[in-house]
Amino acid sequence: MKKIIKNGIIVTATDTYQADLLLENGKILAIGKIFSEQMAEVIDASGCYVFPGGIDPHTHLDMPFGGTVTKDDFESGTIAAAFGGTTTVIDFCITSKGEPLKNAIQTWHHKAKGKAVIDYGFHLMISEINDSVLKELPSVINNEGITSFKVFMAYKNVFQADDAMLFHTLVTAKELGALVMVHAENGDVIDYLTKKALNEGNTEPIYHALTRPPEAEGEATGRAAQLTGLANSQLYVVHVSCANAVEKIIEARSNGVDIWGETCPQYLVLDQTYLEKPNFEGAKYVWSPPLREKSNQNVLWNALKSGQLQTIGSDQCSFDFKGQKELGRSDFSKIPNGGPIIEDRMSILFSEGVQKGRISLNQFVDITSTRIAKLFGLFPKKGTISVGADADIVIFNPNIERVISAKTHHMAVDYNAFEGMKVTGEPISVLSKGHFVIQNKQFVGQAGNGQYLKRAKYGMLQQFEEKLLM
Amino acid sequence: MKKIIKNGIIVTATDTYQADLLLENGKILAIGKIFSEQMAEVIDASGCYVFPGGIDPHTHLDMPFGGTVTKDDFESGTIAAAFGGTTTVIDFCITSKGEPLKNAIQTWHHKAKGKAVIDYGFHLMISEINDSVLKELPSVINNEGITSFKVFMAYKNVFQADDAMLFHTLVTAKELGALVMVHAENGDVIDYLTKKALNEGNTEPIYHALTRPPEAEGEATGRAAQLTGLANSQLYVVHVSCANAVEKIIEARSNGVDIWGETCPQYLVLDQTYLEKPNFEGAKYVWSPPLREKSNQNVLWNALKSGQLQTIGSDQCSFDFKGQKELGRSDFSKIPNGGPIIEDRMSILFSEGVQKGRISLNQFVDITSTRIAKLFGLFPKKGTISVGADADIVIFNPNIERVISAKTHHMAVDYNAFEGMKVTGEPISVLSKGHFVIQNKQFVGQAGNGQYLKRAKYGMLQQFEEKLLM
Amino acid sequence: MKKIIKNGIIVTATDTYQADLLLENGKILAIGKIFSEQMAEVIDASGCYVFPGGIDPHTHLDMPFGGTVTKDDFESGTIAAAFGGTTTVIDFCITSKGEPLKNAIQTWHHKAKGKAVIDYGFHLMISEINDSVLKELPSVINNEGITSFKVFMAYKNVFQADDAMLFHTLVTAKELGALVMVHAENGDVIDYLTKKALNEGNTEPIYHALTRPPEAEGEATGRAAQLTGLANSQLYVVHVSCANAVEKIIEARSNGVDIWGETCPQYLVLDQTYLEKPNFEGAKYVWSPPLREKSNQNVLWNALKSGQLQTIGSDQCSFDFKGQKELGRSDFSKIPNGGPIIEDRMSILFSEGVQKGRISLNQFVDITSTRIAKLFGLFPKKGTISVGADADIVIFNPNIERVISAKTHHMAVDYNAFEGMKVTGEPISVLSKGHFVIQNKQFVGQAGNGQYLKRAKYGMLQQFEEKLLM
Amino acid sequence: MKKIIKNGIIVTATDTYQADLLLENGKILAIGKIFSEQMAEVIDASGCYVFPGGIDPHTHLDMPFGGTVTKDDFESGTIAAAFGGTTTVIDFCITSKGEPLKNAIQTWHHKAKGKAVIDYGFHLMISEINDSVLKELPSVINNEGITSFKVFMAYKNVFQADDAMLFHTLVTAKELGALVMVHAENGDVIDYLTKKALNEGNTEPIYHALTRPPEAEGEATGRAAQLTGLANSQLYVVHVSCANAVEKIIEARSNGVDIWGETCPQYLVLDQTYLEKPNFEGAKYVWSPPLREKSNQNVLWNALKSGQLQTIGSDQCSFDFKGQKELGRSDFSKIPNGGPIIEDRMSILFSEGVQKGRISLNQFVDITSTRIAKLFGLFPKKGTISVGADADIVIFNPNIERVISAKTHHMAVDYNAFEGMKVTGEPISVLSKGHFVIQNKQFVGQAGNGQYLKRAKYGMLQQFEEKLLM
Repeated sequence: MKKIIKNGIIVTATDTYQADLLLENGKILAIGKIFSEQMAEVIDASGCYVFPGGIDPHTHLDMPFGGTVTKDDFESGTIAAAFGGTTTVIDFCITSKGEPLKNAIQTWHHKAKGKAVIDYGFHLMISEINDSVLKELPSVINNEGITSFKVFMAYKNVFQADDAMLFHTLVTAKELGALVMVHAENGDVIDYLTKKALNEGNTEPIYHALTRPPEAEGEATGRAAQLTGLANSQLYVVHVSCANAVEKIIEARSNGVDIWGETCPQYLVLDQTYLEKPNFEGAKYVWSPPLREKSNQNVLWNALKSGQLQTIGSDQCSFDFKGQKELGRSDFSKIPNGGPIIEDRMSILFSEGVQKGRISLNQFVDITSTRIAKLFGLFPKKGTISVGADADIVIFNPNIERVISAKTHHMAVDYNAFEGMKVTGEPISVLSKGHFVIQNKQFVGQAGNGQYLKRAKYGMLQQFEEKLLM
Repeated sequence: MKKIIKNGIIVTATDTYQADLLLENGKILAIGKIFSEQMAEVIDASGCYVFPGGIDPHTHLDMPFGGTVTKDDFESGTIAAAFGGTTTVIDFCITSKGEPLKNAIQTWHHKAKGKAVIDYGFHLMISEINDSVLKELPSVINNEGITSFKVFMAYKNVFQADDAMLFHTLVTAKELGALVMVHAENGDVIDYLTKKALNEGNTEPIYHALTRPPEAEGEATGRAAQLTGLANSQLYVVHVSCANAVEKIIEARSNGVDIWGETCPQYLVLDQTYLEKPNFEGAKYVWSPPLREKSNQNVLWNALKSGQLQTIGSDQCSFDFKGQKELGRSDFSKIPNGGPIIEDRMSILFSEGVQKGRISLNQFVDITSTRIAKLFGLFPKKGTISVGADADIVIFNPNIERVISAKTHHMAVDYNAFEGMKVTGEPISVLSKGHFVIQNKQFVGQAGNGQYLKRAKYGMLQQFEEKLLM
Repeated sequence: MKKIIKNGIIVTATDTYQADLLLENGKILAIGKIFSEQMAEVIDASGCYVFPGGIDPHTHLDMPFGGTVTKDDFESGTIAAAFGGTTTVIDFCITSKGEPLKNAIQTWHHKAKGKAVIDYGFHLMISEINDSVLKELPSVINNEGITSFKVFMAYKNVFQADDAMLFHTLVTAKELGALVMVHAENGDVIDYLTKKALNEGNTEPIYHALTRPPEAEGEATGRAAQLTGLANSQLYVVHVSCANAVEKIIEARSNGVDIWGETCPQYLVLDQTYLEKPNFEGAKYVWSPPLREKSNQNVLWNALKSGQLQTIGSDQCSFDFKGQKELGRSDFSKIPNGGPIIEDRMSILFSEGVQKGRISLNQFVDITSTRIAKLFGLFPKKGTISVGADADIVIFNPNIERVISAKTHHMAVDYNAFEGMKVTGEPISVLSKGHFVIQNKQFVGQAGNGQYLKRAKYGMLQQFEEKLLM
Repeated sequence: MKKIIKNGIIVTATDTYQADLLLENGKILAIGKIFSEQMAEVIDASGCYVFPGGIDPHTHLDMPFGGTVTKDDFESGTIAAAFGGTTTVIDFCITSKGEPLKNAIQTWHHKAKGKAVIDYGFHLMISEINDSVLKELPSVINNEGITSFKVFMAYKNVFQADDAMLFHTLVTAKELGALVMVHAENGDVIDYLTKKALNEGNTEPIYHALTRPPEAEGEATGRAAQLTGLANSQLYVVHVSCANAVEKIIEARSNGVDIWGETCPQYLVLDQTYLEKPNFEGAKYVWSPPLREKSNQNVLWNALKSGQLQTIGSDQCSFDFKGQKELGRSDFSKIPNGGPIIEDRMSILFSEGVQKGRISLNQFVDITSTRIAKLFGLFPKKGTISVGADADIVIFNPNIERVISAKTHHMAVDYNAFEGMKVTGEPISVLSKGHFVIQNKQFVGQAGNGQYLKRAKYGMLQQFEEKLLM
């Protein structure tokens, strides 16, 4: 049976207009104001924006980290995502040295299968580059449809790659058609400063920030940018947090380097002082990179506005305060890094960005969905409202006010980093491939309805367009 | 009667997809693949892109200049524009000191009325800011719908404004909701260098370039950017030609200044050596700013790609070589500035940009149409393919090869600056408000069918969106 | 009779060493530790630095300004200068449009003659460039030895030059061997903002700062730098006050432009909040450019340290608070600009710079004396301690602490902008051409002993060196 | 017996003046024109400059490298240096992992002792930072007077330090008062590119340059600069070769980082095309970093002029073409890196720099001697002409023209990289501590007369000055 979404304001990364959407078989069949309502389910979107479903390019669901596991798995995590208007997540598949990539991927499929309520894809974390890995990568891309590789410049002796590996990955990604993602912080420096702080008896959460200074991020960002230019490859810098890093991205883009930057809601609205909250509460605000001095927020907003940063991810990586964050009570370096944000990523950007005039409505869609779909090979199936696209749709009331709180959120953790924050704008209903996941603010989806997405190679859009013509 | 554009690939600034367009009453009624062909005229667009009509933000039709008048008027000019896929032009209404603005505007209406074959709007050239002008401006904006003002930093003793006037214009534009456009070259320096060159007997066309060095453009661009930031206003830099100016725009955008940059096809593909052509042929390539050293081209392309420059205008300002350009045979400073480009603006950008992989297909649409519509208050009536928009549509075959030549062009001048250049991609048919202007490469439009466009205020898009919701 | 300065630490822009100086006929005859004390007057400099006398490149003595005249003339001004360790001043000779330059210069000679207690030179303020001025300039340089010209980019309708005049001056200075000095603030913008503030009833001193924003200085500095590069000329930016301007100078130097920057003590240690002092006391702190936000101070210090700014001038321009500054009680724009600093320029730089480790001892000498002598054609007669140089010498005790105060200063004004500031380091004795002007902190000089200095052309040092060889 | 150097033009980093020097006991006793010639040896310097002896901060004498040893040892090397006007060298003492530092230093003392004809000091190459090394370093500084440590960012698996070691070294150096020197090239990238080139059969010398691109140097320079800022330490970047690296140094200095840059004659006058010379002759021009594209030369000259780079070293590291350079005939990566330049470092800078007006005469002295002495703790004993300084003096005729050639040079190698180059200016006589080493262009020194120099800590100049006062 067809559905008609009626009377809403359709918003894409370019357009804003009033029209109805005709959906069938999980896809958008037509757009206009001429559709017969007979034989169709009519969904009234009066007074609402109709957005393409959000895409979260940066989640860590059900991920082992430092002896514990992130609290939200593919079920609670994707339910929370859907409540927030996100209809696709791309999660990081973690690999181990020596282990075949296909095993890690298989593990990740097991984590997601039967649980996800919205569609999902995987990025591949690269932990080593050797003959065996190089042999597997073409299949990872062509058969598994995993077309983005993440490299860590931080987490010394754990995930950290040296420059040889980063450069090799960049060159390989260029050859194979993948996008390299980089966690850009200088792990050597951080390791040194961390040991020094601990040796000096400085164990509180604020030292997490003080031992990961902006210079460490700016340096690594600049290094990755230069290596990308040299390899004539492509790079996506995850979770950019500070002015120092933004400057390096602007400089590289001005020099023609194919580099993209993501920031996260936490860096846009929170700051370093949160880490100083008493009673170890600062631990709730331990991300890497850390929260920065407030002056960086304006730089990040301006970079989003002027297109120097292009996307927003959540870096969802949730741990309970009790029992998990507490692991670091006597040593900040043992606090599990990350927080629960998958649910409010879009609301915060809408409320702080669009409502406050920092970005336009179309930029909001581009930043939360369209550009991500394009960069990660999901476009135009995902990321837009156009004929033939998946009917992943958010009906969003821009005028509802609500307060973010752990009491009401749908993530499986015992706190919310934005507790008490007022936001304006909320998804009313959310469809995934034409089916309601959220209807009138109630979850009506089903675990396992989310499907795995094989993604196209990086930069294949042009070939796609040319094929369309034939 | 309805029209259906069938089997084409619809391309917007964001989307690329295969669907049909249903047109009625000059507007896009619906998009999909479900339309009954009964009672409709079916237009086959197989193998073609379907673009929103191009918008040329920078034309000088029927304009007096230095004792002569540009060759193309609103009839030949808009016919040529339509052949090239442009369905809207915004022409500069020239004012004189002491003359009421409404007189100048009336004059421009007379020039256009009954002649234009496509829709058109006007920018207002500001020649002075005084009480009388300030009193008239609100009406110019609110009643005439002229929401962009141009200020010249060059042409000393003719058009040139001093900084007081530029700053006053910026402040006033901010208050009234207009976008300031600036010709950014330091006229004092150019005047000095020109007199010096002539005194030394250097009269050939190449001295046009040598007396208008890139520093003069970079300086003025930087100055205008700083003044815009200080006035918290908005600026559109016309015809950016060189790296020095691009750097200033990048810097200002990085600092949060609301500044936009336009370049032109001539700066992307021609260079300063053309001015050295023998037999006074260099005069054909006299633009201001002048053609630059070839190394600047890459900087301009990269700025378009990375979004540091956002639009492309033609700066159409055509003079015959015989009788007009020749006025400067013995004195380069008397060569009428400008050239005929209105027709090939889009083809050149498509062929050199999209076909050569320098910009994407969606960027092409954004640069030639959508962004211009947004900046100049024509969106979403113009500049996109969405339900409710004007049916200004270009059916574009991307694979046709042709050679640009004065023998075949439709402009009223006796030469073409791109003579002999091979381009790939050509408009087959062009519709303005649902009516063919070009059909199968033949002009079928009618002088006078083009309508005057009252434009919305700058930055009113958000209010528009909010109103849609009510 | 010879003099021997004994047991001091001789400090030049390069060297620091213990030796004695043998003086004769107003010059340094020899340096060593071998001089017979017979037949010589021995001056003990134990525990003191022996510096070359300071050179103040920026004074306005006995200058008419806005209907009044600066309080310190060449007598009180140079006495105060000497107390502070300055043995040469270069004062600005103000010209008027239409008046022959030689008349203005004659006027200035009259002001100085018989009054100055130390040597002095003149810069020429350029108020217009026309045939008559161009005809006089060679004689100004060659006969009068005035080899630096100042152009104002501010003070609209009073001193302000347009870009044509600035550029013409740069080109002319290059040809003739003069250094162009520029007051870099955008006068048009300032004029606009000033009128607006007054119209809105904002008349207090703080509006002096608010109507002369850093963008106005940064813009003008960048403009002057680009024009200098274009003219292949040389530029000295006076009284640089803010980060925005420093950035432009760094950028130009990096591009090979021959540009130099001066700052002043007031910008290094005072800030914009001083203008908010109650009871109109803010008027004491009215300089142009104005005092800036405190964050600029660090940028200026760092620029001095790294050689991006090269000199420090006083911009001495003193007016009484009573009767003079008060002229602007009801209108900040009528407050005479400037303050009394000629006396403490060196002490402040020594105390805040050297003592606090921001610059080295040798840099102190370079910044206050040597570099100035080199730029303005006084080297090696002035500006250093070398055999053959004038015996302009300061015996400076670095450990004396004192408090700056109008009660004890030697300037003819009724307040001191640094009232109450503690400084460490004070000149004990000061010699001009081998004669004491200050001896054990007492003035022992004589009005009229100061001589006029004809200065060498800009960049003539190399020729001088080559001539030495013959 | 005393010596008098008569009638010369004394030149220091600041001064240029005509005077005589009185020398006694190896030191400068006095400067003037009053010295009795009785009982003194009079040296006529008419028509000559009298410079402080040059200091070469960067030599590799008698150094093992890749299975061979540099050709010039402390005897031939220092004789050649003296011929060129250099009176002090600071050589790199190479250490090995696991070996006590004192052993390496002992080895270096053995190499120098009895051979050097001029004074010398050592830098310490740091190959690892561990408890044992950290324990030894205070003694290295305090007892051995070795106050500069070199870290390599290149030469993967040989000398290359990771960022942890670099950062640790920076922090340690700050604490102990040493200056960190860095070879800034990204060794990981170079290693990757080298292997790739060799795998693809690209073995010729030009691939040395192509596998060490400017991005690898710029990246590493930027990284080292950021780490230095973060450590609040001090850095000296050796052999800066390209614009990319210069930009990073300018940026860091503008941000207040205590960073200094050295370039070498080869980068100022040779370029990458030399590596393409036929018959394997390109091997003669294999340095690391490699010679660059010619456009970089202008950037380097300008950086010297504007003080963004401060010193010039030779990076003397000589290998015969026959038998040594030839080791890389079938594999460019086996060509011993380096060349013979110790002799002509100063002549080239004088001829290309001073004579061509790119730098001033005083800058020449600063760049080749004074600044080096100050940075490396040798000032004021070395590096200047002042009373009390060592009588290390060069009598230099600026007008002699000669041609550089292996046939006439005094280095122990079979080629000269500047073969055939005409230079103007040559040392006539050179004194070390008051004794002739070169007299009328003849070597008259003696092996073993050179003494080891214990150097002062970094930044101790201020303390020294203060002590002088007591």
